Parts: sequence; C-alpha cells; structure tokens
Amino acid sequence: MPSARKTLKLDRPFEMRRGGALHGVEIAYETWGDLAFCYDNAILIFTGLSPSAHAASSTEDPSPGWWEDMIGPGRPIDTRRYFVICVNSLGSPFGSTSPASINPGTGKPYRLTFPVLTVEDIARAGYEVTQSLGVRELAAVVGPSLGGMTVLAFSALFPNAARNLISISASARSSPFAIALRSLQREIIRRDPQWQEGNYEEDSIPVSGMRLARKLGMITYRSAKEWALRFGRERADAERKPGDPFGIDFEVESYLENHAAKFTGQFDPNCYLYLSRAMDLFDLADHGGSVAEALRRFTVKRALVIGVETDLLFPIEQQVELAEGLKADGRDVTLARLDSLQGHDSFLVDMDRFRPILSDFLK
Amino acid sequence: MPSARKTLKLDRPFEMRRGGALHGVEIAYETWGDLAFCYDNAILIFTGLSPSAHAASSTEDPSPGWWEDMIGPGRPIDTRRYFVICVNSLGSPFGSTSPASINPGTGKPYRLTFPVLTVEDIARAGYEVTQSLGVRELAAVVGPSLGGMTVLAFSALFPNAARNLISISASARSSPFAIALRSLQREIIRRDPQWQEGNYEEDSIPVSGMRLARKLGMITYRSAKEWALRFGRERADAERKPGDPFGIDFEVESYLENHAAKFTGQFDPNCYLYLSRAMDLFDLADHGGSVAEALRRFTVKRALVIGVETDLLFPIEQQVELAEGLKADGRDVTLARLDSLQGHDSFLVDMDRFRPILSDFLK
Repeated sequence: MPSARKTLKLDRPFEMRRGGALHGVEIAYETWGDLAFCYDNAILIFTGLSPSAHAASSTEDPSPGWWEDMIGPGRPIDTRRYFVICVNSLGSPFGSTSPASINPGTGKPYRLTFPVLTVEDIARAGYEVTQSLGVRELAAVVGPSLGGMTVLAFSALFPNAARNLISISASARSSPFAIALRSLQREIIRRDPQWQEGNYEEDSIPVSGMRLARKLGMITYRSAKEWALRFGRERADAERKPGDPFGIDFEVESYLENHAAKFTGQFDPNCYLYLSRAMDLFDLADHGGSVAEALRRFTVKRALVIGVETDLLFPIEQQVELAEGLKADGRDVTLARLDSLQGHDSFLVDMDRFRPILSDFLK
Repeated sequence: MPSARKTLKLDRPFEMRRGGALHGVEIAYETWGDLAFCYDNAILIFTGLSPSAHAASSTEDPSPGWWEDMIGPGRPIDTRRYFVICVNSLGSPFGSTSPASINPGTGKPYRLTFPVLTVEDIARAGYEVTQSLGVRELAAVVGPSLGGMTVLAFSALFPNAARNLISISASARSSPFAIALRSLQREIIRRDPQWQEGNYEEDSIPVSGMRLARKLGMITYRSAKEWALRFGRERADAERKPGDPFGIDFEVESYLENHAAKFTGQFDPNCYLYLSRAMDLFDLADHGGSVAEALRRFTVKRALVIGVETDLLFPIEQQVELAEGLKADGRDVTLARLDSLQGHDSFLVDMDRFRPILSDFLK
C-alpha cells in the first residue's frame, strides 16, 4: 500500500506527564502543502480517538483521508496556502509509539506496561513534530473531539506556539456522563476473556469486547434525532440464523453490526483503552487552577469553538464554557453552535455546515 | 420474608400474540385498599422492566415498594379511595410465568423455548387479573416506562376497560436510538460465555454481562446534567487493586459498580432479554394502521401523559405525539412536561414534581 506517512524518531527519552518515560519514541505524521520561507504558515491537526494521520489524500497516498473534504487545494484548510501537518496521536497504533509497540528495553510489546497516557503527552508529541520540521509559530492548531482536547492542552503547554486555535466538539474536561460511557466501553473490552489482562496475541484479540464497545461508541457519537430520520422502525431484511431468537430485528441493529465489524481488527484494544482513558483524565483546570484561568492564559490571538447541539458526549454548554473562557482579555473568539443532526460525529459528516465556518475563520 | 403477593393461576391456555401458548400461566400481583361495592374504583398499575408487583408496603409486607411515595392512604394514588392492583409483568421473574419458570409440559425451565413476549401479552395478563378480581371498569390504568407502553397496549386491546389512563415516560413505539441501546444491552449479555445460549445454571449466571448491561441501562436512565451536578469530577476514594491499571478513577464509576452489583443476581438474564425485546417490538401503530389512528380509537375519557425533558430513551417529542394523538375527538388530555434532571428514572426519584400531577389528575 502506498503511504505518505513520515515518522519522527526522538533520540532522547520522552518523559510522560504522569510518570515513566518512553525511549526511542516514534511519532507518525503526514503533511500537505509547503512550509513558507519564514516557517509561519503551518497548521497542526490533532485527531479524534480512532483515525490515523492520513487526514487527506496526496500524491504519495491517493486514498481518501478521514477529513478529505476539509483539506486540500481550495478546501477550507487550503494546502495552496498552508503547510498542513496531521499527527497520529502518541498511544495510537497507526505508526506512533503505543502500547502495541515493542519496548526497546525488553524486546516485547509494552501492552499494560505502557505508562499512563494523558492528552498533554499527545500534545507534546505533536509539538515535537512541529519543532522537527522547523515550524516557528503555527498559523493554527486544530482538532475535533480528543483532537480538540489536545488543541487545548497544546495551547496551555506551549504559549506562543500558535496564533489561532480551532476546537471542534471538544471540552475543557469530560463530563461524568461521558466518563461513565467511556469507562463502560473499556470495561466491556476488559471483561472479554480474550483480553487476557492485555496479553492477547495478535491473532486472538478480544473481538467480541471490541465490537460491543464500538457499537456503544457509535450509538453515542450520533443523535437520537438522526437515527429516527434515518432508520425509523425499518426491519432488517437479513435472514435470521436458525436457532437465534435474539438476532437482528431492526435495520439500526444491522447497521451497527456491519460497522462495528469493520472497526474491529483495525484498532489495537490496549491502545483503545489508553486513549479512551486519556480523555477521561484530561482536565484543563490542571493548567491554572480553574478552566477559566487556564483559558485566560492562552496566548492565541483568535479562537474558533465549534459545537453541535445534538452532541451527547460534548454538549453545547461545554462549548459555551470554552468560548466564554477564551473571550477574556478581549481575544477574538467565534462560537459556532451547529444544528447538525449527526451528534458528536457531525464534523466527519455534515460538511455543508462545517466547511464554510472553517473557511471563513482561516481566510 | 413476609409477602403480600397473590397469584392468579389460569386453567386455560394463554395464547401468545406472536404464536405459542403457555399452560398453567401464573400472574403475580399485589393489591391495596378495597374494591367498592359496584367494582368501579380499581386502578391497575403496570411496572417498568425490572420491578416486582410490590409497588408499596402493606400490613402483609411492610417493606417499602418501588413506588412507595405514590401509593397509600392520602398519597396520590389514594388507597382510602381506590382499590389498587399492581401486576408483575408476564415474563418477569418475580412470580409471574417467565422464561425462568418450569414448563409444565417438559418439567424443565422454559429458557429460550419461551415464546416471543410482546407488550400486548403483558397487558392481557394484567387484564386477566382485573377480571379475576371482579373489576367491572377500571378507574384508571397507570404505568411508567415499559408499564406506560403496557397502558397503551391495554387501552388498544380492551375498549371500555378503563375510564382514565396515565402514561409516564413511555411512547407509542421505541425510537431506533432506544432500540440500539437495548439491543446492545441484550448482546452484551448474550456474548458473556456464561450465558450458554440461555442454558446457564442458577449458580453460574452470566454475571459479567448482566453487570455491564445494567451499567449501560443506568447511564441511559439518567441525564448528563444530573450527573454533572451529582458527581462533577470527584475521584473515587476506593483504593485501586494492585496490578489493575484500568480500575476505578472517578466517583461516577464507583457508583455504577456498586449499583450494578446489587441488581445482578436479582434478575434472571433470560427474563431480561425477553422483556427488553418486548419494548423494542412494541408498535402502537399495529392497532389501527398508524399511531394517530390507534390513539383516536382509545375509549378512555381522560388521559394524563407525563414526560421528562431530560429523558434520553423516551424523549419529550414522543410524549407530545401521545398527547396530540389522544386529543382527537375532544378527549380531555393533560400533557405534563417535567423539568426533572433525573432523565428516564425521574418517576422513581423526583417525587416532588410527580406527586402533585398524579394527585390532581386522580382527584
């Protein structure tokens, strides 16, 4: 398969925020466009929990990326103007050092010996990539979901590293409702006997736990309204297996089954556990005593906060909190409250609403 | 243990709506107050998915019932005035015939040989109880959640059987969102290796699956707002087990763990599967071609529809649909939209809001 993936390899230890250090850390990323003569036109993108750094197609890798409609020549994140970098999060299995990587100290995969991962560690790994590329000051740092939390962590940790920030469907800290749902997803995986306390082999991963956890994710990433419009009460036409009285009755069940099956096997379960927990542990108040104070200290000149009214996991009040906090000291802040029906996933789907807002802000 | 439980035993076969018949059906119920001389002061209560018929304490069983604050002398469902009957749903393991019961034809538990259970079957079992007690016309039929769906099924199946209906946090049919969540709960149970295709022994039930399913239920029964107020980001003070890097971090996780543990072991997993699926299969449109037409045909004189703004599973639009549909033909309909924070569970918790509404309606 063609790949546009580049890898930064650090030769000094990467100290983790909650203790422990990684040696020989690798951080995978992709880039689009060209860095300007004075190194000031770069946009750094952090991703949600599950995507790789392949945010858009390129000549090296023409397959569509996870944010294909957003990045490219003439697109909202315009690669004729900006040098765009997307990093694969530290802890994610798509090229960056993660619980699935070989620990150079032991020659075996880290698995649960991987140190506790925080959003701040992911932010710092992204910062290392920008430094290695010679970026002086980012034009913008951008991210949706976990990526938006990483944008906030990045802004707290590295003053003057970016002129603008775009936080999409993120929050200063997870709500107990979101924590409960993610904690349950992690427990579902851990209760799968095949998880084996994290010591599963590559050919016998906890498929059942991953599939169930993914289904729960998919349910909470969308909105009840969208599903009502999309599925109504359509019955699945799939024939039921004989002797399976609790098989699939409704179209919505069949949709979940097909999509969850696709995801499983693509994502390492231990990586999922680490990244999911990082979202729960994140609290911007750690950087200034309160969320408001942490946001006040940010040095970005302009901020765009996008939230979706139907988002169950990162509700609109959390977007308001971010925008209000950022407005301190007369900073130029735009809050976009979108009526998208697709809930938390809207930034991947409702391009007609998202594109113009990013275009306007980045013009 | 003292018990106020009475049991109706039918000596004719009980034909199930989707096929199959049960022989020697038993329907457990409790009653409070006295039936009036002309048999017209009875109120029939159907329950949610998990409770027994023990809705309130009595001299025979002084332990508090699941709706203790609602039923009794001087309470909204006033037992000085009304003869109150609460039935244990057909298919529930608390005294009524269920998948956990012995099939008299084989001498073994039904388990998955139990016929498909529908809300209409539960309604009809309740009707049998009222007939056996000599009730002529119910003063009211009342139910929350699954019980509210059963109220609707009852009203569709038995014209002139009740003068009033109270539907609480129910709906004419489940949304795909609610179906997806319940379907996932059922799959979590069925994927537990201890489920054994329904053939688990009493001392080795699928504990892990039941606990996870219950946690998911608990998350969706409440609201994100309530949890934010209740738990914030408090850390659990429980010590973490050594070697368990993914144990409990937050108070909300510890709350779920403790409550789910209590539930598990009290409720038969196969019964849970049957009752849960009955909610998904229910569609009031089956009784008239459309929901509106089914509601128009109801014969109750007055109806009270109560919904909660924060309910994720039975959203307020579904309450509006019920109230609008019932208003046809000049029926006296009250729609109460409550601002309770406790989501779907509010009817069990937010007594200050619920009590006056039921009192006023039943006065």
